[in-house]
Amino acid sequence: MSKVRFTISMSLDGFVAGPRQSVDNPLGVGGMRLHEWAFALASWRGRHGLTGGAVNESTPVIAEAFANVGATLMGRNMFGGHPGPWNVANPWNGWWGTNPPYHHPVIVLTHYAREPLQLDGGTVFTFVTGGIAEALEQARAAAGERDVALAGGASAARQYLSADLVDEMEINLVPVLLGSGERLFDGVGDNLHGLELIRTVATPQVTHLKFARR
Amino acid sequence: MSKVRFTISMSLDGFVAGPRQSVDNPLGVGGMRLHEWAFALASWRGRHGLTGGAVNESTPVIAEAFANVGATLMGRNMFGGHPGPWNVANPWNGWWGTNPPYHHPVIVLTHYAREPLQLDGGTVFTFVTGGIAEALEQARAAAGERDVALAGGASAARQYLSADLVDEMEINLVPVLLGSGERLFDGVGDNLHGLELIRTVATPQVTHLKFARR
Repeated sequence: MSKVRFTISMSLDGFVAGPRQSVDNPLGVGGMRLHEWAFALASWRGRHGLTGGAVNESTPVIAEAFANVGATLMGRNMFGGHPGPWNVANPWNGWWGTNPPYHHPVIVLTHYAREPLQLDGGTVFTFVTGGIAEALEQARAAAGERDVALAGGASAARQYLSADLVDEMEINLVPVLLGSGERLFDGVGDNLHGLELIRTVATPQVTHLKFARR
Repeated sequence: MSKVRFTISMSLDGFVAGPRQSVDNPLGVGGMRLHEWAFALASWRGRHGLTGGAVNESTPVIAEAFANVGATLMGRNMFGGHPGPWNVANPWNGWWGTNPPYHHPVIVLTHYAREPLQLDGGTVFTFVTGGIAEALEQARAAAGERDVALAGGASAARQYLSADLVDEMEINLVPVLLGSGERLFDGVGDNLHGLELIRTVATPQVTHLKFARR
């Protein structure tokens, strides 16, 4: 069966986004510091139409995260824009412009119904209001034999993790402090819901901690 | 000049002790899970009069932590017993019995004056009420050319870290969640006070992240 996987960057003090997240600053104050290791990689730059960049121990980790993904599952906050009902006159269509980097079905977990949104390059956003189980079922159906990438945000990741529905989790631990913001594990409890550390890859910029079911 | 170093075990969600710390449960509920990796090592067992145990990538990390230490500095909570003034009739003399594992001067940062306490094996606890700078000065004087080990607890570590007084910090990141308890970095802010990650050593049980001044 296809797996549900997520990969997320986290500070040494446990934050996956800085404080005061907004449309202008979706990662919160200082949150960009969690992603500098990725932006410096040739593989990240290549996917975003840029040249150059580093090839190091993180390269195969990132390649693995993007391989064999048939559908993406994300929370409403990750899709972004604004809280509450959709603005019908001027709808928010995501952070990614007219050609998002997914190129496959994306299931958005939301409290507010909306028609599917088809953008260029094969990305179709489908909005599901029936809860995490229904959203996952639709993502699995869309992924077929391939895996479901749980893209976040933190709240969606927490909900699936707490419900024992995550099969693989890659924590990219960045050796900085944010001091405040959104914590990945708040409310998840005192166990990893069946996941165990199975592999560590370290660079000076990031420590990749891969967890999976045994 | 001698360095101020501390080494501490921390959960993936940032806790260095579980909730409800007490004399009967000094590490808090679940806090012992942060130390199982160490208890399994031959080097830890040997220091505590036990035989057997593992030799692995953690072994030289632990050896390094114990080498070249001339004095230990700790907070009152780490020395333990009870909060508030010392019980003169029945004084708390630490967790470690009559022959503590330090075998060198130990400076205890406290709000309550007390005469020095000399125990077997060369361990002398000196109680300093003049604040973190004075306690460190006394620890440095006692350490001579060797280093000062900042033994914790979390509050003392945070105070020295926030005051830019820590030269080396080893975080032993344990891949478990505690869910609640005492966080190492609460209130430290959004930077590591001059420290940078300089070395990572990983085993399936623990990731040793060494920070130092560049």
